[in-house]
Amino acid sequence: MSFPCLDAVELRTQEMASRSLTNGPEPSYTTGVHKEFTSKDPLLLDYGGRLKEFTIAYEAWGKMNADKSNVVLLHTGLSASSHAKSNEDNPRLGWWEKFIGPGLALDTSRFHVICTNVLGGCYGSTGPASIDPADGKRYATRFPILTMSDMVRAQFRLLDALGVGKLMASVGASMGGMQSLAAGVLYPDRIGRIVSISGCARSHPYSIALRHAQRQVLMADTNWNRGFYYDKVPPHVGMKLARQIATVTYRSGPEWEQRFGRKRADPSRPPALCPDFLIETYLDHAGEKFCLEYDANSLLYVSKAMDLFDLGIANRDSIRKLRQKNKHKLLEGCSSDSEACSLSLPKVPYTERQSNKDSSRTTSGDDDDAVVSDDLVLGLSPMRNIPALVLGVESDILFPAWQQREVVDTLRKAGNTNVKHVELSQDVSLFGHDSFLLDVRNIGGSVKSFLEE
Amino acid sequence: MSFPCLDAVELRTQEMASRSLTNGPEPSYTTGVHKEFTSKDPLLLDYGGRLKEFTIAYEAWGKMNADKSNVVLLHTGLSASSHAKSNEDNPRLGWWEKFIGPGLALDTSRFHVICTNVLGGCYGSTGPASIDPADGKRYATRFPILTMSDMVRAQFRLLDALGVGKLMASVGASMGGMQSLAAGVLYPDRIGRIVSISGCARSHPYSIALRHAQRQVLMADTNWNRGFYYDKVPPHVGMKLARQIATVTYRSGPEWEQRFGRKRADPSRPPALCPDFLIETYLDHAGEKFCLEYDANSLLYVSKAMDLFDLGIANRDSIRKLRQKNKHKLLEGCSSDSEACSLSLPKVPYTERQSNKDSSRTTSGDDDDAVVSDDLVLGLSPMRNIPALVLGVESDILFPAWQQREVVDTLRKAGNTNVKHVELSQDVSLFGHDSFLLDVRNIGGSVKSFLEE
Repeated sequence: MSFPCLDAVELRTQEMASRSLTNGPEPSYTTGVHKEFTSKDPLLLDYGGRLKEFTIAYEAWGKMNADKSNVVLLHTGLSASSHAKSNEDNPRLGWWEKFIGPGLALDTSRFHVICTNVLGGCYGSTGPASIDPADGKRYATRFPILTMSDMVRAQFRLLDALGVGKLMASVGASMGGMQSLAAGVLYPDRIGRIVSISGCARSHPYSIALRHAQRQVLMADTNWNRGFYYDKVPPHVGMKLARQIATVTYRSGPEWEQRFGRKRADPSRPPALCPDFLIETYLDHAGEKFCLEYDANSLLYVSKAMDLFDLGIANRDSIRKLRQKNKHKLLEGCSSDSEACSLSLPKVPYTERQSNKDSSRTTSGDDDDAVVSDDLVLGLSPMRNIPALVLGVESDILFPAWQQREVVDTLRKAGNTNVKHVELSQDVSLFGHDSFLLDVRNIGGSVKSFLEE
Repeated sequence: MSFPCLDAVELRTQEMASRSLTNGPEPSYTTGVHKEFTSKDPLLLDYGGRLKEFTIAYEAWGKMNADKSNVVLLHTGLSASSHAKSNEDNPRLGWWEKFIGPGLALDTSRFHVICTNVLGGCYGSTGPASIDPADGKRYATRFPILTMSDMVRAQFRLLDALGVGKLMASVGASMGGMQSLAAGVLYPDRIGRIVSISGCARSHPYSIALRHAQRQVLMADTNWNRGFYYDKVPPHVGMKLARQIATVTYRSGPEWEQRFGRKRADPSRPPALCPDFLIETYLDHAGEKFCLEYDANSLLYVSKAMDLFDLGIANRDSIRKLRQKNKHKLLEGCSSDSEACSLSLPKVPYTERQSNKDSSRTTSGDDDDAVVSDDLVLGLSPMRNIPALVLGVESDILFPAWQQREVVDTLRKAGNTNVKHVELSQDVSLFGHDSFLLDVRNIGGSVKSFLEE
């Protein structure tokens, strides 16, 4: 029996192994020319890690006005770079190409749009693939655990350096939709408006489960080598598998029903265990395209940071105490990878301590009459005076529409009288979570009118 | 950084490698004592494979009456054995323990209930782990591609041997729900009633995508060794990963919201890349429990057979022609693994031939006013005189409720005036696809009253 799908990945492993002997190691991850800001001041992270210094890659479009009051900060999804839009230095199309420009959703004839690569990413910002200044070696999995708030703090260091006091708006989708809310909670006085598209106020177990599956698949690739693969063959098989799982969560069933149905790639051939139905070849291609385009360790850290996202007051309080306890690390000269200064992980596996009687939840899934959680109301209350647009898509399975409704109900209960909620029904958008990348008319249109009203 | 989750699987690999040197090879897959029926007549499979002989493992409960008119055939889900219910020979609890027995959903004081392990499975029926009589070696991936209809044909060979002409009812859930319908189409004159729970009339791309991800993850485990692992360490890591993905599809978000929420396994510990949130430890345990309990090749073949399931007339016609073409194989003495008699797979990878303009679908996802597909109406028309109960669960994401509605609408349009449709709303069952294993009151109750009306 032949397995062309396995032949293909095995061939790549061989090619990469021999290439690394002649042309040097792993692929370099880049989407092209960008600006870089390096902060020489150390950054204390929520869970106690410390970066002695860090770099944030960014790009910008449109002219900043004299009083720097027209700046829009655009937050990315998990795997995106700062390259949201083509420009003279880098003509390659950006991930929000059709949403940024004169007269477009983020109108560059009015706004100065800044987009950064997140802290922990691999497109120019400091992340696991970066060199640890403490020892001149790559961080790999010595890199400290990150949170959404850590990423936002790093962004605001950049804004400080640019002299931008208050943003005209904070805008983001998917993970960027989380960050947009996190920014509103951390820096309410520095943000004029908030747009959060297909995001949430905290990660829910179903989304954690789907990201968990991706991480486990990636970490099971022996080439991942517990994170230390940088001078060897990278875990391209694990990355390909992880991306295929992710792709299932990014699109929706109804779209696939229309596009792929039960069509086979080649009906004249007998069925096979390798990709066979058209939907399978689509997923295979999605994995192929991605597997060498993004750093595996960045995927793990950024994905984990999404799981840890929770703007509820209980989590915020516990992080606040942790930061207080670790504050001294900013003053000390310890290296970021020493036991005292970075994360130590448990030596024994976690054990399940399950209790069916414990029902500490305060909001319920799809229930339209869900009780709004006091924990979240208190957590989001710093944003109560910031006009907000919250956008959701009915066909999204990764960040289901009830999670954006949760944000809306919470903000309103926190006293925010200026919350606009848009939910795209299945008639309008079949594209699930990926709608924010595709639906220029409805997503772009809503963003534009909210920012310009 | 420590990775207890990787330590655990690596330790198991080592243990299994050393154990296989002393105590012999791989685990044997069994759920205990069962009956076996062996057919010495060859079986021609839909895609041209041929089994020279085959065995079907089965168990039975309740007394068969004199005219053999009280037999209920119970079809299993993907990974279940014939052990649906404990008995004297095997007191271990069965997978439908609370649904079978005197006065229960399948009332053994009235009915003789037979449950088989599917052809292709690993719990006593002939499958990839079985010995190929042609050469005395295990089939492994030389085993031919199977379909749901092939499995049903094998079951009816058993019924023939038992002298059962007509079933009182054909009952099944999940994959068994597919088989229950397939039986109705193949043998309409031999079935009194049909119960199809959380099944469908054909597999849809979203479900194919989720099974594809599981197969790819499993096949990427180097211990899978293209199917030839039987005297070595089995691909327990790939099996564990595949089961974790499957588990995500078996349960529903709302249930997890209640049960796990954002609880961490041990909040006093810092976050980790290994399982950390309670939902992650739950998935990890589900994978651990399963990874040595089921044969990897069986998972691949049976999962693929589910993808290939399509009761539409176009597919049925094409299979009919294929069977006609391959009929001679039943007469010839060729071995089941020769090129001429089994499946040959493409030498080059499939290429995507995508066209956005092609919209050949006739039914649409969640659209309540979906046009019923003529292809399906013609395909299911043999069942038009068989009373049928079709049961769906709103919170099911693997076989969404619209797919059971599709079955119901199709059967009614085919002229079946005796179709009962039950859909459990989210208020009633939060358990998603797994409801059929858990909800004795609503699922069991509906089945019981339908069978006894």
